[in-house]
Order: sequence, then structure tokens, then C-alpha cells
Amino acid sequence: MSALVHHREQFVLRTPGRGTQDVTKRVQDIVRGSGVRDGQCTVFVHHTSASLILCENADPTVRRDLEAFAARLVPDGDPIFAHVDEGDDDMPAHVRTILTQASLTMPVVDGRCDLGTWQGLYLWEHRTAPHQRRITVTVLGSA
Amino acid sequence: MSALVHHREQFVLRTPGRGTQDVTKRVQDIVRGSGVRDGQCTVFVHHTSASLILCENADPTVRRDLEAFAARLVPDGDPIFAHVDEGDDDMPAHVRTILTQASLTMPVVDGRCDLGTWQGLYLWEHRTAPHQRRITVTVLGSA
Amino acid sequence: MSALVHHREQFVLRTPGRGTQDVTKRVQDIVRGSGVRDGQCTVFVHHTSASLILCENADPTVRRDLEAFAARLVPDGDPIFAHVDEGDDDMPAHVRTILTQASLTMPVVDGRCDLGTWQGLYLWEHRTAPHQRRITVTVLGSA
Repeated sequence: MSALVHHREQFVLRTPGRGTQDVTKRVQDIVRGSGVRDGQCTVFVHHTSASLILCENADPTVRRDLEAFAARLVPDGDPIFAHVDEGDDDMPAHVRTILTQASLTMPVVDGRCDLGTWQGLYLWEHRTAPHQRRITVTVLGSA
Repeated sequence: MSALVHHREQFVLRTPGRGTQDVTKRVQDIVRGSGVRDGQCTVFVHHTSASLILCENADPTVRRDLEAFAARLVPDGDPIFAHVDEGDDDMPAHVRTILTQASLTMPVVDGRCDLGTWQGLYLWEHRTAPHQRRITVTVLGSA
Repeated sequence: MSALVHHREQFVLRTPGRGTQDVTKRVQDIVRGSGVRDGQCTVFVHHTSASLILCENADPTVRRDLEAFAARLVPDGDPIFAHVDEGDDDMPAHVRTILTQASLTMPVVDGRCDLGTWQGLYLWEHRTAPHQRRITVTVLGSA
């Protein structure tokens, strides 16, 4: 047993509109800077129309297919939705967020998030217009 | 680095049947009472037919639309389901739970869960009849 | 307030192909061995085509129905998918993973994950062929 360190850091990501953005390196840099060698890292998105996913990181087709699937599952402009204040993509963005993650916790080993070979961490912007997304990274463990 | 405090508290929520119930204030009160100023708060639901979501908290239409979407995606009485012991909404409740969250972790800053402006924490009851739902809140951080 | 212990352990699960495997006992054994009496346990899967769920643990029909639902929601061989490098179940496996969980956090009370009566923890293999799946369990709390 050793004393535990708690480190928290925020960053803002500008998105160009709907789609996935790789934040793996950004989060790994924060973990490295935290001084935590062994523990856990939790990433949190402070929004209801953007979310987090761990997704295959080698073939960009995977994320295009994912987008196509989401667009079919929760279609923009679906007449089932009454909440259309900000347009056709407003309510679908909320649903897509709820079907994925607002927070994700990963083990930290030797000062890095211990992801699988094919795991990348992505922010998924669900609105069609560009947005600024606030993300908090918390690292907890021993130095 | 400072010593970390670990606080755990349970509560039971009575639901009137299917729908979302705002538990944000209840959880914020537990965080405040924990004495933790900086850290994380994890909420956990001890059930397989009720779940947690972070959802838009300003327009109630969002949660009505969400309900309509879920009812179409996982219809009560769907003939694909063989597990109907407790009625038409039994298996759909399990599926809806699995597609959302049993646990959610949020950063705690200045003694409060640091949620986005539009983020509310909701228990989502998926059964049509009223139920009692047990929820555990764990707060971990420095005082 | 008492000193916090951090324990991490990994195991590899061999799956026979698509379907759910109960890992509750395995995880409870790790928690017991960790010496942590009060705290939290986080389970993490290091893959993008297998995931974690908390599911009803009494009637196996529930998990068969869940499988039937997933197969209909994200059909193998769906022409919407371009990423078919490893076959018809390749991209569906990624989507099913993203719609469920890579990490799950449960409260630990009296040296055990405090699950609800009907909650079992399952690894959900989404590929049709057998795979080896790496899982990390982190237990954090007081002894």
C-alpha cells in the first residue's frame, strides 16, 4: 500500500461538427504529466450531445460505418421527436449521447492508460455544427 | 498530494413506473455532506431493469422523446422475446438497462459534481409498474 | 478516514465465440483477495469487439433474448457496413461493443461487490469465433 495521488485536468476540444475525434494522445499526455504510475484514469464529457467511445483505431472505415449505423438508428428529422428547438439533429444528438458514454474509466499501468492494441479513445460529436466540448480527465493512483 | 476520503451512502427511490426521475439534487446533497471538495462521485443502481442517464435537464420534451424512442427501439410485447415471466415490459426493461448505464462517474470540484450546464442525472425506470430502486453513491477525494 | 489500498489484477478469458460468460465469481474472488473491505471495483475489457454488461442472472432466456435483440439491431452482413475485413460479424461486433460497456464500476461492501440480487457481471463476446479476452480488475478502498 502506498499513498494515492489525485490529479485533475480539463481541456476544451473544438469539433468541426458530427464525427469522432481521437483524444487518446491528449489523455495519455495528461496521465504522464500527472505523475501517477499505477491507478486509474477517468474521462468525463460535460455535455448532453457529445459522448465518449473506445473504438477500433486502425481502420477509419470503422468510424464511418459507426456513423452510418447511428444515422440510421436515430435519424435526423425523425417525426417521433418533438424537441426540435435547435434543428433536426438536436434530439438525435441527445439520444446518441445516452446510448454511448459520458464517462469512461481505464486502468493506468506504468504511467499510461493500459488500452488494448486496437482501442482508441474518441470524443463523438453528435451535432452537425461545430462545437466546443469541455472534457475533464481525473487520474488517481500511486506515483 | 493530500489524504483521500472515501464516503458511501445509499438511498432508495420509489418510482411511479416507467419514466425518468431527476436525482441530481439528491446526489449533490450527498456529495456536499461527504466533506469531499475535490475528487469523483460514482453512482450505481443495483437493478437490471432501471438505469442511469445524464440527460438534458431544461426541456421535459427531451425525456418524453427519449421515452418514445426507447419504446420504438425495444417494443413491449416484441415477439422476439421469450422471457415474459413478469409481462410484456419485462425483457424490454432488461435490454433498455443494458443499452444505458448501471454506473456513472462524475468529477467533484469545490464540493459539487461538476456537471455541464444542461446535464441532469436521472434514474430511468424501465418497468411499467412502480418499483423501489436502491442506489449507492460513492464519493472519493480530498477534503 | 482511513488509508486507501489500490489493488489491480488481470485475467484472460477464452470465449467459445459470440455469447455471454458470467465473470461475477471471478471478479468477486479478486475483490476478496485484494483485502479491500470498503470501496469500489472497476472492471475493464481491453478490446473493441467484446464488452461488459450487468444482466439478470437467474433465467438464461434473458441472455438468449438479448442476443436475439442485438442480432436484429446490428445484423451480421448488413450492407451498410464497409469494414468487413474479418467477415460479416466484424463491424457488428464493434457497434455492439460501443452500445454496451468497456468499463463498469461497482461498490465494494464488506469485501464483496455489492450487486443487486439479480445482477450478474458478464463478458459479452461479439465475434462469432473463439477469442482470448484480457480483463483488468481494479479494487480501491480501505482494508
